[in-house]
Amino acid sequence: MDVDKEYFSNISTRERAIFEGAISMGALFHQFVGTPINKDTKESLERAMEESLKLQPAIEDVKVKIRFDKLEESMTEFDYTSLTGDMLDVKIFTKVDNVTAVIRIEFIEELNYPLMYVENIEED
Amino acid sequence: MDVDKEYFSNISTRERAIFEGAISMGALFHQFVGTPINKDTKESLERAMEESLKLQPAIEDVKVKIRFDKLEESMTEFDYTSLTGDMLDVKIFTKVDNVTAVIRIEFIEELNYPLMYVENIEED
Amino acid sequence: MDVDKEYFSNISTRERAIFEGAISMGALFHQFVGTPINKDTKESLERAMEESLKLQPAIEDVKVKIRFDKLEESMTEFDYTSLTGDMLDVKIFTKVDNVTAVIRIEFIEELNYPLMYVENIEED
Amino acid sequence: MDVDKEYFSNISTRERAIFEGAISMGALFHQFVGTPINKDTKESLERAMEESLKLQPAIEDVKVKIRFDKLEESMTEFDYTSLTGDMLDVKIFTKVDNVTAVIRIEFIEELNYPLMYVENIEED
Repeated sequence: MDVDKEYFSNISTRERAIFEGAISMGALFHQFVGTPINKDTKESLERAMEESLKLQPAIEDVKVKIRFDKLEESMTEFDYTSLTGDMLDVKIFTKVDNVTAVIRIEFIEELNYPLMYVENIEED
Repeated sequence: MDVDKEYFSNISTRERAIFEGAISMGALFHQFVGTPINKDTKESLERAMEESLKLQPAIEDVKVKIRFDKLEESMTEFDYTSLTGDMLDVKIFTKVDNVTAVIRIEFIEELNYPLMYVENIEED
Repeated sequence: MDVDKEYFSNISTRERAIFEGAISMGALFHQFVGTPINKDTKESLERAMEESLKLQPAIEDVKVKIRFDKLEESMTEFDYTSLTGDMLDVKIFTKVDNVTAVIRIEFIEELNYPLMYVENIEED
Repeated sequence: MDVDKEYFSNISTRERAIFEGAISMGALFHQFVGTPINKDTKESLERAMEESLKLQPAIEDVKVKIRFDKLEESMTEFDYTSLTGDMLDVKIFTKVDNVTAVIRIEFIEELNYPLMYVENIEED
C-alpha cells in the first residue's frame, strides 16, 4: 500500500510536516509526564524520550531538555519528583520532502502553561 | 498576551486546525493506552477520553470508539485487558476560524498499525 | 492453572491483600497523571479511574477524589490543566479471603509528596 | 516527620517490602506501556525505566528486559511498535531493614496475561 497516496494526498507537504511533529509532541508529553525523576536520572530520561520519539514517521530529530529549575522547585522529601509538562523544553524536527518544521514545547509563565507551537517551518 | 498573534501567526488557519487536532490525537493515544478495560467499562472510558481531550485548544468534539472485536481478541484469564492502540477508532474535530478538520486514528490491517491521518478538512 | 497456588503460596493472605492494592495504586497514578482536566470533567475522570482499576485482581472498590483546591491552584489560561499526583485522594479497597485492606494516596504538605500507604488492614 | 512511624507502623517489615515493590511495578507498567520502541531503542528504554523506578522508596535495584520475541511479533510497517505489558520481563528488588523481596512481572502464555507476583522474599 502507498500510505502517502492513500491517506495523505489531501494535505500539503507543509501540513504533513506539521501534522507528524504535532502528533509526536502530544505523544511525548502524555507518555512521559509522571515518570519519577531527579537530577541524576534527568539525562537517561532525556535520551530515552528522544530515541523513542525519533521512531515515529517523519521525525528527523528530537531535542529534550528537562528544566532543572522547575525540577528542583517540585522536589520532595524523597529526593525525586514526577516529571510534569512545566519541566519540558523540547524541539521536534520533522522533514517531509523539501519541508522542515520545528515543533516546540516550552513553559510560558504568563499563561502558566506549557505551550506547543510551530517554532519554525521552511522549504529548501 | 495574544497567544495567536505571538505564537501562531507563522502558520495558516488550515495548518493550525491540523496542528491542534494532531497534538490531541497523540495525547489521547499515549495518555490512555495501558488502561485496564473490559466490555463493562468500555463506555465510561470512552466518555472520559472524549471529555478530557475536548478541553484542549481548538477541539470542537471527540468521538471515541473502542473496538469490541480487538478488545475480545486480547482478553485474558482475569476478564479484563489493557487498552492498546489497535483498539482505537477515534475522530477528533477541530475548528479554527472558518476551517474544520477531522483527525482520525484507525487500525489498518495491512500495515499492522493504528494510523493517524487527516480524514477531512474544509473551509466554510 | 491454579494461579494462587502456583504463584502466591509464598506470601500470606495479608501480604497478598497489600500486594494487589499497591499494584493498583501505582497503576492508577502512572496511568492517569497528565490527563487534561478541569472542574467540568473531574467527575467523569474520577468514575473512569474507579471503574478501570476495579477490574484488577482482588480489588473490591476504588474511591477517587480529585482535590478541587489543588486543581484550581494549577489552572492555566486555557481553562484546564493536567492531572498531577498532588491532586489525588484515593482509597483502594482489596479483599483476599478474610482480609480486607485499604491502600491510600494523599498529598502530605510536610513532605511535598503524594504518599501511598496502608490506611487500614483487618481480618474478619 | 518520621514517615515510617507515622504511616507504616501498622504493617510488618515483610509487608512493607512487598508494598513498595508492588507500587513500583504497577508504576512501571502504566508509565511506560505505549512508548514507541524497536530493537535499536530497546536498551535506552530499559535503562531509563530502571533508573527512574530506582528512585522510589525502598527500591534497591530494577532489572528490565523487554522481550525481543514479543517485540518482533507486534512489529509494524513503520519499523517500530508500542511497548505492551506482554513484552515486559522485570524484577524489582526491595530492601526494608533485614527483608529483601523480588517483585516480578512476566507474561504467562496460559493466562494470556503479564502476571505480577512476589518471586522471592527473605530475611537476613
